[in-house]
Amino acid sequence: MTTATIVTAAMLAIGDELLSGRTKDKNIGHLADMLTMVGIDLREVRIVADDEEAIVDAVNALRGRYDHVFTSGGIGPTHDDITADAVSRAFGVECIHDPEAMALLGAMYERRGMEFTDARRRMARMPVGATHISNPVSTAPGFRIANVYVMAGVPQVFQAMLDSLLPSLQTGTPVLSCTVRSPYGEGDIGGPLAEVQKKHPETSIGSYPKFDGKTFSTDIVIRAREAAVLAAAEADVVAMIETIARSR
Amino acid sequence: MTTATIVTAAMLAIGDELLSGRTKDKNIGHLADMLTMVGIDLREVRIVADDEEAIVDAVNALRGRYDHVFTSGGIGPTHDDITADAVSRAFGVECIHDPEAMALLGAMYERRGMEFTDARRRMARMPVGATHISNPVSTAPGFRIANVYVMAGVPQVFQAMLDSLLPSLQTGTPVLSCTVRSPYGEGDIGGPLAEVQKKHPETSIGSYPKFDGKTFSTDIVIRAREAAVLAAAEADVVAMIETIARSR
Repeated sequence: MTTATIVTAAMLAIGDELLSGRTKDKNIGHLADMLTMVGIDLREVRIVADDEEAIVDAVNALRGRYDHVFTSGGIGPTHDDITADAVSRAFGVECIHDPEAMALLGAMYERRGMEFTDARRRMARMPVGATHISNPVSTAPGFRIANVYVMAGVPQVFQAMLDSLLPSLQTGTPVLSCTVRSPYGEGDIGGPLAEVQKKHPETSIGSYPKFDGKTFSTDIVIRAREAAVLAAAEADVVAMIETIARSR
Repeated sequence: MTTATIVTAAMLAIGDELLSGRTKDKNIGHLADMLTMVGIDLREVRIVADDEEAIVDAVNALRGRYDHVFTSGGIGPTHDDITADAVSRAFGVECIHDPEAMALLGAMYERRGMEFTDARRRMARMPVGATHISNPVSTAPGFRIANVYVMAGVPQVFQAMLDSLLPSLQTGTPVLSCTVRSPYGEGDIGGPLAEVQKKHPETSIGSYPKFDGKTFSTDIVIRAREAAVLAAAEADVVAMIETIARSR
């Protein structure tokens, strides 16, 4: 028997546009996929507006509760980009123009022959003591302070920053999963499936209805941290479906 | 001068599959669009797992803070559908097989010649005192208790339930918005745009970078509850972009 290491995480997506419907978030699903792959359990997501109070409250609630907290959005150069201020306040430290980030951005704009405006300088702001999360797409770095990782909202940049960040994080035992497709709706399989779940307490069995406009079918997803445990539950789910088929 | 009515809301999306990445949520964006249209301000979204404690905590945190709380997911017939139990516990009331819902479902399965299994009976469960949110897609109702509206996770069903529910809710003064497209990145417009925001404090001006793989442009979204206020800010944003264009 092996001991699984459980590492937990939360995500905080920041932006009025996500709450007005103007922008449909793409970062939550991507983060979920990536964390599942490396063995970090995403336990909670919150979306809040560009509102300092709301961001501070959420950061403080989540950073105490989970091993890792990932944020997206609000680190650009405009007045509504207030994530660096809010995260600084959450940690009770000053928000400064980070010298290394200033040098990085200054050199980039000089190379491109563009003015290093006050607005662009805003992108170098981060809490005292933060370290960079590199941004190969558009240079302006994200940052990490303690267990909080602050990244951009633009999906291409969020994804690039996450790729830079992930290899440096503590990860756990990845969750293995398999999907058994059931031609029967949840109402037909619900009773026997609950029995299978009871028999395999070390797995988590989820049941996801699919609706094609006329009838329901079900995807049964089994998750476990050990291959043998997963295989035993899978066999019982398949046997359960065969039993239902024979009874029709 | 008119007085705007502000009505606030939160959403709680429930389901392991949203946090593992298996399912990419489609209900948050749809709810955001619909609420914006009718004049309800969506202020916060949370996603939690199929975990009773997590659901209870989130429901209680949100229902005290916002006028309306919309939930999605966890009301099907299987063992991992525990939203009715959790919401009942959040309100400190018993979770029962609602007699009206039992009659509705019983009749439907009889009509279809299908067995009304124990699993299917689970879909009639709701807190004592809850009223139905009708489900024209697949019959099994959602429910409302106080300011909490419990709906299905399957997008077609969530949308149908929301359509049933919305006309009965208290709504506010809708937010009007317009978008001005800027060919310049946020770094070029950030300074002057902050000035425009300062000059128009009754508007909320958001700036959304777009990245085509090579260069950034910006969508500037202005939001206000009065048409004249919106138009005045829009004119200043357009003038600002013209000034930048002339300076090049």
